[in-house]
Amino acid sequence: MTDTSFLQRLTEKVGPGAIFTAPHDIAPWLSDWRGLYAGHAQAVVRPASTVEVAACVSLCAEARVPIVPRGGNTGLCGGATPDASSANVVLSLDRMHAIRNIDIIGNTLVAEAGCILGNLRRAVADEHRLLPLSLAAEDSCQLGGNLSTNAGGVNVVRYGMTRELVLGIEAVLPNGEVFNGLRTLRKDNTGYDLKQLLIGAEGTLGIITAAALRLLPRNDVRVVVLAAVESAPRALDLFKLVFEQCGHRMQAFEFFTAECVDLVLAQSDGVRAPFPMRHASYVLVELADTVDETALRALTEDVIGTALERGLCADAAVSESIAQLNSMWKLREEISEAQRADGTHVKHDVSLPVASIPAFLVSAGERIRKYHPAIRPIVFGHFGDGNLHYNLSRPFGAPDDYFAQHGEALTAEVLDEVARYGGSISAEHGIGQLKRDYFSQYKDPLEIRLMREVKQLFDPRGIMNPGKIF
Amino acid sequence: MTDTSFLQRLTEKVGPGAIFTAPHDIAPWLSDWRGLYAGHAQAVVRPASTVEVAACVSLCAEARVPIVPRGGNTGLCGGATPDASSANVVLSLDRMHAIRNIDIIGNTLVAEAGCILGNLRRAVADEHRLLPLSLAAEDSCQLGGNLSTNAGGVNVVRYGMTRELVLGIEAVLPNGEVFNGLRTLRKDNTGYDLKQLLIGAEGTLGIITAAALRLLPRNDVRVVVLAAVESAPRALDLFKLVFEQCGHRMQAFEFFTAECVDLVLAQSDGVRAPFPMRHASYVLVELADTVDETALRALTEDVIGTALERGLCADAAVSESIAQLNSMWKLREEISEAQRADGTHVKHDVSLPVASIPAFLVSAGERIRKYHPAIRPIVFGHFGDGNLHYNLSRPFGAPDDYFAQHGEALTAEVLDEVARYGGSISAEHGIGQLKRDYFSQYKDPLEIRLMREVKQLFDPRGIMNPGKIF
Repeated sequence: MTDTSFLQRLTEKVGPGAIFTAPHDIAPWLSDWRGLYAGHAQAVVRPASTVEVAACVSLCAEARVPIVPRGGNTGLCGGATPDASSANVVLSLDRMHAIRNIDIIGNTLVAEAGCILGNLRRAVADEHRLLPLSLAAEDSCQLGGNLSTNAGGVNVVRYGMTRELVLGIEAVLPNGEVFNGLRTLRKDNTGYDLKQLLIGAEGTLGIITAAALRLLPRNDVRVVVLAAVESAPRALDLFKLVFEQCGHRMQAFEFFTAECVDLVLAQSDGVRAPFPMRHASYVLVELADTVDETALRALTEDVIGTALERGLCADAAVSESIAQLNSMWKLREEISEAQRADGTHVKHDVSLPVASIPAFLVSAGERIRKYHPAIRPIVFGHFGDGNLHYNLSRPFGAPDDYFAQHGEALTAEVLDEVARYGGSISAEHGIGQLKRDYFSQYKDPLEIRLMREVKQLFDPRGIMNPGKIF
Repeated sequence: MTDTSFLQRLTEKVGPGAIFTAPHDIAPWLSDWRGLYAGHAQAVVRPASTVEVAACVSLCAEARVPIVPRGGNTGLCGGATPDASSANVVLSLDRMHAIRNIDIIGNTLVAEAGCILGNLRRAVADEHRLLPLSLAAEDSCQLGGNLSTNAGGVNVVRYGMTRELVLGIEAVLPNGEVFNGLRTLRKDNTGYDLKQLLIGAEGTLGIITAAALRLLPRNDVRVVVLAAVESAPRALDLFKLVFEQCGHRMQAFEFFTAECVDLVLAQSDGVRAPFPMRHASYVLVELADTVDETALRALTEDVIGTALERGLCADAAVSESIAQLNSMWKLREEISEAQRADGTHVKHDVSLPVASIPAFLVSAGERIRKYHPAIRPIVFGHFGDGNLHYNLSRPFGAPDDYFAQHGEALTAEVLDEVARYGGSISAEHGIGQLKRDYFSQYKDPLEIRLMREVKQLFDPRGIMNPGKIF
């Protein structure tokens, strides 16, 4: 499938140092970081500018060569892994990592797609601004991938998804044209907002090369509350109370069950049980403000006092220091790692109307128990957004490959239940390759048809990240 | 052009009480509220449900009859006024005014397109929630129009445009199909976010029949600061200070020049000069929080103290009561009415990168003075969003129809200057009929081509709100 004259021309576009074709050079680019997906490619190109990206895409378009855009490769759905075709060209944005502008008057950041999210967060923090997008992979994921997957994370309850932070994008369309939408305006009602199509499109409609984002003031005053809640309805009540009283200060409202804590205590070093007693579930709330730690702490203690008084939580601790705050977060953050150490799990990233979470947990739990009474749901997530990572541990003593046989049936149980409550089968991870079949099964056929028509409009040759979403 | 069998069938869809065809009945529906635009139609239909809207649209699609969706008719660009074709059917959403659901756990509102915005704001306030969309026309504009124009208003600096509040929409597509996207999920990464195309499309891609919106906690604790600033750069400095110190509490940052205050004092009753001296310009800042008026007031006074100390403002007053707060707002809110009383003006709703506002004011002012030294720019707007209503009063003594001759040339001067700074020719009002030519002149040809292709995809017959945007 390798076409020498095509590869020669591609090499001319980016220079010989920015293209790999030897199998051992391209091998690291052919799979996802978890090793769940693997594909093939004839080359990996690493253009250094938008002009070079456009030149590569034009050439691929002309030759009808499929392109797989690649960011930090931290996705969980195989969206940046090529499919089985050896004709693929993987196009990595990693060399486009310039911060083009930080404007602390208009509070905007313009940065290229290959920038590491954590680096951007630190760069704007130095200017006393906040880029509120924050997720576990922030020190390896790239901005282009964040936009292409409409990344979520722990602070969505306050700041929204990536989409809500984007003011403008620059992108190369599947025919090689450059979409120059890198505006920094908060208000611009001039026709259809086309950039919205590229955000969350997982590279199937074009390649985002740069973005303009809104920045916020730094909220350096932070307090974390860890609360033991006896049930999901009590967690809802607590959410309502904090939402009404603390308003915008609430920047995380996380939930996890006793089973999550059991796993972390068993698998992770340096983590201690949060309370003298084991409780059915836990809530972690982070509150933050620009100024006045005393006032924030007083408000927090007042609200938690009310919650304890009303029986919304059984026990609660308020962080007294940054060290304590971090150790409270550690309990939540270690869950994924502890799961990995525990062996294979079936994972689901679902969302529900927040008020339906308790009913969903009951009815989904029943379905799982009916399937096998010893499967352990490991449920945690961004409760305030209705986003649960509804994962399943194999029964104690079951072989490590238990889910090879049972995973698909169990996923059907979970997703059917999600659909019944009007939820989403992918809250923040996207579709990629992983959820393509579920997408076609659960999404409204009219929406799928319209999406396919939009795809056809933007990419009539079908060269942009084939096999993803559809 | 009237086709009896078509009208008969249309009548069957909605019932005889919900269709007008007599000229004197339809006359009120053929022009915009300011009387700048007028058109023709064969009928006005007022369907009462999504099913009825779909039936009307299907019939029109089949007969290739153009449809003009109509909300509260408060737009400023003629977007809801039919064009000259007597074949038009005006489709009013005013009978679809049900609140389908208010969820105070998930903090969402589901309401039909014909709901009056002010009614929705009051309904959710009764449930201790805030629908933050707030604009001058809120007691007559309708939700469907708000979404279709991506309405802005005075609180965008904190809460964003209408788009940022929308979780889901229900819409009737130009072929009569119903798009069932009325989800209330904060996180839903399942393919392209199609609803974004309909938001801000001014009814050219379909008819929004209902929407799901995010709600926020009520911020009943409010303080307003009125500050005299000697120049736009000082206003910028003040904006930066308030942004950094007060963070999310800042929910309005308005700016207006001495000329605006002069007009209001001359034309409006019950408004007094804000300070003993006349100053070059003024800033109105509103801060709001869920709790603790004492703390908010202390923070405000602290910040304003710093601003006075640093010379960012020459004088300042902090509201001591709701009555004072309202009278400070009145000064700002009366500007449009005072302009109307003063006679014809040329109006522009533009946006700029916030940091460019001072330079823009200088260079645009120079261009206007060069055109005619006695034209008075009446500049006010949502400074914190970069959104200026850059209006022009005719020279003292010039005839009332001065702008009939000079308006177009002056608009060209202003918009050219906006374009030079990377601004937008329509910040929050949209394109409609008013700015169609400017849109085609100033918008990137690639974006226009893509928009036309999207239009063609959704509405191949071209029946949805013809003559708007394009």
